[in-house]
Formats: sequence, C-alpha cells, structure tokens
Amino acid sequence: MAKGIVVYPGTFDPITLGHIDVIERGLKLFDHLIIAVASSPAKTPLFTIEERVEIIKEAIGSRKNLDVERFSGLLVDYIHKRRANAILRGLRVVSDFEYEFQMALTNRKLDPRVETIFLMTAERYSYISSRFIKEISRLGGNVDCFVPENAAKKLKERYRAT
Amino acid sequence: MAKGIVVYPGTFDPITLGHIDVIERGLKLFDHLIIAVASSPAKTPLFTIEERVEIIKEAIGSRKNLDVERFSGLLVDYIHKRRANAILRGLRVVSDFEYEFQMALTNRKLDPRVETIFLMTAERYSYISSRFIKEISRLGGNVDCFVPENAAKKLKERYRAT
Amino acid sequence: MAKGIVVYPGTFDPITLGHIDVIERGLKLFDHLIIAVASSPAKTPLFTIEERVEIIKEAIGSRKNLDVERFSGLLVDYIHKRRANAILRGLRVVSDFEYEFQMALTNRKLDPRVETIFLMTAERYSYISSRFIKEISRLGGNVDCFVPENAAKKLKERYRAT
Amino acid sequence: MAKGIVVYPGTFDPITLGHIDVIERGLKLFDHLIIAVASSPAKTPLFTIEERVEIIKEAIGSRKNLDVERFSGLLVDYIHKRRANAILRGLRVVSDFEYEFQMALTNRKLDPRVETIFLMTAERYSYISSRFIKEISRLGGNVDCFVPENAAKKLKERYRAT
Amino acid sequence: MAKGIVVYPGTFDPITLGHIDVIERGLKLFDHLIIAVASSPAKTPLFTIEERVEIIKEAIGSRKNLDVERFSGLLVDYIHKRRANAILRGLRVVSDFEYEFQMALTNRKLDPRVETIFLMTAERYSYISSRFIKEISRLGGNVDCFVPENAAKKLKERYRAT
Amino acid sequence: MAKGIVVYPGTFDPITLGHIDVIERGLKLFDHLIIAVASSPAKTPLFTIEERVEIIKEAIGSRKNLDVERFSGLLVDYIHKRRANAILRGLRVVSDFEYEFQMALTNRKLDPRVETIFLMTAERYSYISSRFIKEISRLGGNVDCFVPENAAKKLKERYRAT
Repeated sequence: MAKGIVVYPGTFDPITLGHIDVIERGLKLFDHLIIAVASSPAKTPLFTIEERVEIIKEAIGSRKNLDVERFSGLLVDYIHKRRANAILRGLRVVSDFEYEFQMALTNRKLDPRVETIFLMTAERYSYISSRFIKEISRLGGNVDCFVPENAAKKLKERYRAT
Repeated sequence: MAKGIVVYPGTFDPITLGHIDVIERGLKLFDHLIIAVASSPAKTPLFTIEERVEIIKEAIGSRKNLDVERFSGLLVDYIHKRRANAILRGLRVVSDFEYEFQMALTNRKLDPRVETIFLMTAERYSYISSRFIKEISRLGGNVDCFVPENAAKKLKERYRAT
Repeated sequence: MAKGIVVYPGTFDPITLGHIDVIERGLKLFDHLIIAVASSPAKTPLFTIEERVEIIKEAIGSRKNLDVERFSGLLVDYIHKRRANAILRGLRVVSDFEYEFQMALTNRKLDPRVETIFLMTAERYSYISSRFIKEISRLGGNVDCFVPENAAKKLKERYRAT
Repeated sequence: MAKGIVVYPGTFDPITLGHIDVIERGLKLFDHLIIAVASSPAKTPLFTIEERVEIIKEAIGSRKNLDVERFSGLLVDYIHKRRANAILRGLRVVSDFEYEFQMALTNRKLDPRVETIFLMTAERYSYISSRFIKEISRLGGNVDCFVPENAAKKLKERYRAT
Repeated sequence: MAKGIVVYPGTFDPITLGHIDVIERGLKLFDHLIIAVASSPAKTPLFTIEERVEIIKEAIGSRKNLDVERFSGLLVDYIHKRRANAILRGLRVVSDFEYEFQMALTNRKLDPRVETIFLMTAERYSYISSRFIKEISRLGGNVDCFVPENAAKKLKERYRAT
Repeated sequence: MAKGIVVYPGTFDPITLGHIDVIERGLKLFDHLIIAVASSPAKTPLFTIEERVEIIKEAIGSRKNLDVERFSGLLVDYIHKRRANAILRGLRVVSDFEYEFQMALTNRKLDPRVETIFLMTAERYSYISSRFIKEISRLGGNVDCFVPENAAKKLKERYRAT
C-alpha cells in the first residue's frame, strides 16, 4: 500500500465550504488525496453523480495531487482497489460522532488495514450541513457563505426550476 | 427592532405540555411572544397547519401578549418581517443539541442580528416528543399526560378514523 | 408480578451478535427472558416478522428460560399481559442514549410499574447496528462477523434476489 | 453465584433522594440489595464512613432484603466475596455516561462474571449531585428537597460548625 | 420582579473574549445586565476578586445598562436581592452542558421563579476556556486572541512574577 | 515543514496498551512519529518524567522511525522546533471529545499551521485510562491487561512501596 494516499468519501450533494476546508487540510498532510463521490441512490440526492463530480471539479480546480472520482459498492473495496490505506473524515464540533465512529469501526472490521483519519473542520464551518443548505436554498435563502460560488448558482437554478 | 418580541417557532404537530411549559416561561421573560407554526410540508404532519394553529389557540387561550401565527419560508425572514429580534427555543435535558446548535448558528449566519434564546424545559417534560406521542396514540395508548386535553382528543379522533 | 421475567424488545431485522450478547447476559441475571419481536411496519423491515422470529430461534436455539414472541401495540401493554415487570435494553458505548432514555421515561410514564434495565453490550459489538449490516450486505460485503451464521445467509439470499 | 444479589456501590457523602430512588427501584427487581459504602479517602469526604453508613441506615430504615455495608479495595473483589454477580448503578439523564461506562467495562475486564445493571433515576432527581448539594448547604441554602431529612440536618450541623 | 434584569454570573478569572461576546449579546436583548463576579474561593482563582472586577470594568468600559458586582453566597439569593429574575449563561458548542443543566435545574428547584437563559457564544470563541488560557500564559504563550488586552497584560505580569 | 512527521503528546503516566495501539497505527501512516512526553508537573504524576520515558522505550523497543522525547512548554512551540506539522491524538469511543476539541482548536489558534490528526483506538482499549489503571493497581488489582508488562511491574513496585 502506498503511504500517503487518502480517500475522502462522501455524497457531496453539493460540496460545501466545510468539505473544501477538510480537503485543503488533507492536501497539506498527505501525498495524494482522492475525493470519492458516492452514488448514494438511497439518499435520493438533489444532484446526479455527474453533476456532483462536476461541481467539485469546478470549485476546487485542477491540483497535481488530487483526484475526484465516483464510486459505488463498499468503501473498503474501493480503498483497496485504489491502493490507498486510509479514509479521511472531517470532524465538526457539531457533528454526528456516533455515526462517524460506527462507520470507522465497521470499516476497520471489514478490513483491518483500513484506517480512518479525522481532521477538525475550521470552527467557522462547523455547523454547515448539506441538508440545511439545501433547505435554505429551497426556501429562497442565500447560501453563498456556505458553499462555493458555482454550487450556490446550481442550487438556485435547481430550486427555481422546481 | 423592538426589544422583547420573541418568536417561538415549531411544527407543533401537535403542541405538547413541554411546548406549553416553554411558552409560559417565555411569557414571563419577554414583552411579547409569537408562536410561529411552520407549515413544514416536508415532515408530512399529521394535522394540517390550520388544525395545528387551532389546537394551540384552544389549548393556550387568549393572552394579551401572545400571538399564534403560521409561517412558511425562511425563519430569519419571518423574524425580520415581524420586527422581532430573537428566536426562543426550549432545551430539553434529553434533546438534540446538535440540531439546535446547527440551527441557531445557521440562522445567525443568515442574519447576524437574529439571536436564539434557549430556556430549559421543566424536567418532567424533558422526554416528551411529538413523534413518540403520535406513536403512542396510534397504538391506542393514553397521551393525556403528554399533551393538552384538546390535542389528546384530536389525536384519538385522527387515529380512530384511520 | 413475577420477579425476574424481563422482556427484551426490538425489531431484530435481523438479530445481530450484539443482540445475542445482551440476551446471554440477561439469561444469567434473570429467571426468564422473553425476546419480543415488534412487527414495526413503519420501519418497513427487510424480513417479515415470521422470518425475524425464525432467524432468532435458529440462531439461539431452544433454552429452558427463554421465549421468542412477536408483539404489536404498546410495549407496556405487552409487558403487563406477559406479567413481566421490566424491559431489558442493551446500551452500546456508541448508541443513541437520548432515544433510549426517552423511550424508558415514556414507558415509565405510561406505566410507572414498568422498569427499564440497561446492560452494557460487549465493546467488541458496540458499533454494530442492523442498519449498517444491511447496507454492507446489500453492497456485497461479508457480514459474518456481525450477525449469526443463519442471518448472514438469509441476508445474502435476500440481496442476491433483488 | 446467587441470582438476584446486587451491590449498589458509592461514596454516599451523603445519600441523596436520587440514590434512594434507585435503591427502591432495585429492591423491587432483585432478591437482595447491598448498599456498599466506599471509604473513598481520595475524595476527602465530608462525612466519615461511619457517619455515611449511619445516615443511610437512618434514612432507609430496616428492610428484610437490604444490607448497608462498608467496603474498601477493589469493587470486583467485594462483589466476589459477597457472592453477588451484579453491580447496580443509577443513570441520570444528566450524568457522566463516559465515567459510568469506563467503570462498567473496566470492572467487566477485571472480572468477566461481574455485570453492571443500570436503572434510570426518576427524572425529578436527575440533576441532583452530592457535590452541588454540599455546595448549596455550605452557602446556607436549604437542601431538604435533595436529601433525606436526617442528611439535611447533618449537613446543616457540619457546615454551621466550620 | 423587574422584567429585563438579567444576571451573568461567573468567576471570570480572567474575563475572556467569549464572556464579552455573551455580554454584548445580552445587552442587546435585556434592559439591564449585571455581571456578578463570584468570589469562588474553592477554585483558588489566580486573580483576587478585586482584580477580576477591575479587569472586567477596564475591558468593557462604562455602559448605562451594565453593572459589575461581586457576590458570594447562593446565586438565587443574590438574584432575589437584586430583583432580577433570570440568570444569563453562554452555551459554547464545546461546553459542559451537563454542568450547565444541573446548575440551571438546581437553581430552579431552589427558587422556581429564577429562570436561566442560554445564549450561543460566537463559534469563533466556542473553544476558549479560562483554564486553557491560564495554562497557555503560564507556559509563555500569547493569549491576545483569547482575552481582552488588559487581561492579557495582567496574565503576563502574574506569570512572570511567579 | 517535513511532510509526515507527527508528534504524539501525552503525560503517559504510565503508557497504556491503548497508547501503544495508537502509536502502532500512526507508524503505519506517517514517515516519522515522535512520542512527546509532557513533564506535566501540575498533574503530579506518579512516575518521574525519566521513568515515564524509560517505561515507554522499554515497552515499545527501538524503531527506526520513532523517537521518544520529553518536552515542557507550549506544545505548538515544540512542534515548530521539531519541524513537525501535525499532532496525533487517539480518539476513544469513550473519551473526552470536548477536551480534545478544545485542545485541537486552541493549538490551531496559537499556530494555524499545526494540524491535529485523530485516529480511533481499537475498541477493546476504548475504556482504558491511566487514572483508572493507577486506581486499580493502588487497590491491589491486576493491570496486566491494560498496560505493557514492564509498566504493570513498575506500578506494582510503586504501590507496594507506599
């Protein structure tokens, strides 16, 4: 396994400034970072997986040591296939630790070689959740301070259309 | 902004004795209190917004410094329109702090002038949730000790009808 | 009321090694234990109640002081009917205390004679949840280390069929 | 090991109405209950162990299936010596779960036969702690609603004397 | 009782930017705010009560609707004497809710007329604690971003002297 | 700053199997790991800093990419001096998140380049704390399953001597 390849998984529906904060922190610490966009059909995302990948690529731009990929199936299988050995997750002061810990321990059980690394999100992003952002945008609120510019625009378009 | 107008928002599907406890505490502390009933279509409430407003009015009765109103859209826009400057929320010992804090910090971000004020619900109401009450009533249980009399009656009628 | 009859309620969709750990601990402490399988239609279980009961019976085998029963309606009514006076619940280090406490206090309010007894699940099972297990199995993962053998087989069959 | 002997350990400096609530609940569920008063010199208790035992005995009175004993040393050794197989602990909605869980899991590790059983304290006692009660009494406040009558009197005497 | 007089109690050893944030929020919501500096001998504060009061007065300056006072004894007695009817507390996302809730419920029990009002501290101050600040200053670190200028200077003087 | 040098700080009084678990995980993920033993005089450790360093070295043995060092003063200054750019911390399911997050955010504020990386401790070590281990050893209990062999021996010697 290559030291320093970490996978940052999520649904990213859409990517938020909190996610980007974690990605920037990760890029400083690890040789290579893969943003792994889960298809997550069970969550019935607002944006298709193609849209979600595109929003991320536009928002973050091209970086030498960064890939944006989609995946489906078990995360540990994807980790293995990509020859990474760690999952990166952001911990928010206001977040669902129990969910994060269950996921981390379950993944470790499924494959003991897979480690989960947690970084603290900046406190100014600690209360941002995709769920709240979509709700605000749906009600006509301005979400420019929660998501990158292109995601804000896409949210506006989507909710105006409906 | 008028000092002392606070808005107590919620879905109130239906209002519980815990909600009423918070309202009574708020009435002693603030000049004017507005119970703002959210339409909340996404939660598919058991009672229509008209029914929810009526149940509240019947249960609490007419008070000089209290209004019961419905609202839709962003809470911070409603707060602004009603010239209030604070949101009132009850904290239960057993409650979803993370959700409350996310909401309070998100609202503050959307409009920094909007403050959220938390009061402690009496501990004897601290485990009451509308969700559990509806489940109990649906299964034929007696919910007289959780909700005002008229709400208990309405719940019984609703579940007997289905 | 008979001292020592405790009821261990749940949806058991399907039973996990964590549940079985709690059951084994309970059997050592109480004269008689009833596994009460809730129909829980609102949760749209993967397995029918008949299947869930059968999986439990197969996994645990016949024991002198153990019954597996199905129930619907209010848990406190079932407790009363079975002349038990305590509910048994497993606490996982990673679990939803607030939900557990709300339920315990609500049941106590509905019938003050009904006590809820909590035991600690072994820490090696503390992150197991039926929800995660089903998700893993659905994605083709191996769940042998989370559920008894027969439940793992049933999960595989179910998801292969869909 | 005798089924139904449970040990309720603590410093009881002094016993509170919350403790007594747990004891009454335990007496209904188990054949025999031993209140085990820890010497706890490291906590520099306000009352000597003799005084603490006496306050408990006076407050609870004589019961057929109840003993009040003092112990020092490891709790699991005491459990073994008294041929009990379970520790009883009260969970308060507002309590230090992490401490309770660490203790329960550590005791289980020291002796896997020793189970810890948790009961919910009545919500009206859920915020009572010996530490707060002593602080209130020291400042001249009335603690009659937090502790049994004789403990309130002893606290008053102790703090008047200093 | 005068509507709108709230008491913000604490040890303030020394006052932090987090405290000042809560005070500024409180001043906008209530007619009059009293900063009540507890003598707290049991905490062996770094600064004397005179110093702590002076640091607060210097940091906040003179305001028409603000008093800085010292108190000892029971908080509810002080509230009564000052004819206030509410305690103001800041909730930090990272804070000791259980302690806050115990205190609030205990004070309510001691005097049911006394309400505790919680406001959210700005998230950028959510991790600041007097304890950490003193530790950092003691080790020679710069605490300018945690406390008002005069408090930072006093901390430096105090730790240089020792 | 060198990519991949992480500092694992603590008092290690004494080192536990939980600490060693985190160290082994960290060694797989990072190029170089420094165990930084804080002098922590305020905690009045049981073992001197020399003893604590020696116990760690004996327990872990010599590794190419591992150093054991002592430090005093501010952790961020030490991080800077050692040209590391990340702090490593173990998260236990049963741990003091609030303390960990306060520390992480405070360190980030003191030096924004310093990141804190959290790894999950194995769940079988999740309840181990130096404080409990010392208490058990003091009372004559066997701590072989909590600490490395040499630490267990040292604890025994220390408490037999007193």
